[in-house]
Amino acid sequence: MMNYCSQCGKPLTVSIPEGDNRERHVCRHCETIHYQNPRIIAGCIPTMGERVLLCKRAIEPRHGLWTLPAGFMENGESTVEGALRESIEEANAQLVNPELSCIFDIPHINQVYIFYRAELRDTSFSPGLESLEVELFREHEVRWDQLAFPVIELALDHYFTDLKAGRHQVHTGEVRRPWKWIRSG
Amino acid sequence: MMNYCSQCGKPLTVSIPEGDNRERHVCRHCETIHYQNPRIIAGCIPTMGERVLLCKRAIEPRHGLWTLPAGFMENGESTVEGALRESIEEANAQLVNPELSCIFDIPHINQVYIFYRAELRDTSFSPGLESLEVELFREHEVRWDQLAFPVIELALDHYFTDLKAGRHQVHTGEVRRPWKWIRSG
Repeated sequence: MMNYCSQCGKPLTVSIPEGDNRERHVCRHCETIHYQNPRIIAGCIPTMGERVLLCKRAIEPRHGLWTLPAGFMENGESTVEGALRESIEEANAQLVNPELSCIFDIPHINQVYIFYRAELRDTSFSPGLESLEVELFREHEVRWDQLAFPVIELALDHYFTDLKAGRHQVHTGEVRRPWKWIRSG
Repeated sequence: MMNYCSQCGKPLTVSIPEGDNRERHVCRHCETIHYQNPRIIAGCIPTMGERVLLCKRAIEPRHGLWTLPAGFMENGESTVEGALRESIEEANAQLVNPELSCIFDIPHINQVYIFYRAELRDTSFSPGLESLEVELFREHEVRWDQLAFPVIELALDHYFTDLKAGRHQVHTGEVRRPWKWIRSG
């Protein structure tokens, strides 16, 4: 919801600017056009041998369910820096050798998830403020029915499939509502 | 620059919200926290055999220099939809079989470029409103000294290198200022 101009404080109108083809929030006073764009969620698949680190969420939404370390990318950082920062914040986990693992689009909520798989430097991880527990899981040990979001299931499923195949690929695709996965790579 | 709350129109202050570790623009009146995040630029490498389609820019910045079709990703679309849309807008070019090609972070300007390579359906392309000319180039025909942005050179260089190797990979890395390329994959 955008009601007022963040530059000059005057009320905004909605119209299609000259040379554009979409409705935008426009300030008729200072002529600022306020664009709104999708946000990136940068995350990690922290690995140790055949195991993956998951975090039990201490926050809403999905309190008590399991997730990968991930969060909104910040200005001034790269996607991989954001992903590694989230692993420190949520699991006090130091990771090395990050490699791009997947990009998942979620257009209905204007989000793009970018996951890097990366190796845990050691076992000195512990729950951050947003986690109740952090734990390593082999594929058959993952609580597949207690994962926080569809993208977490997708990222883990791709990861373990590639691990068994002995060859990691970059995966792309789109999560649609109602829950449907459109694989594009 | 953010001066006023886009929700209620009152002046904003800058402070670190409870449970956060970064300064944000915060409204003390309606308590809205205004996060600012990097934006995605979705683009295409349109291919036909050994040739790539480039567009001569009709707009600033870099008017008259050559670029790949690319632009800010819009809410409600996926990265690949944004990339294909830009090819239509800038070159009236219909593309098929998109595959992720590269992700380039540019943290100092809060941008993430995501390029898909995709095949031109036919030769019925033409300049869109933001292009002076659109043309197909083999590697040795590209005007390497007249490319609009470092990321365009990087995307093309990776593409042609992979084309010669007969194997396309997904490339990741970061563009730093002063102009420096940090390869991460």
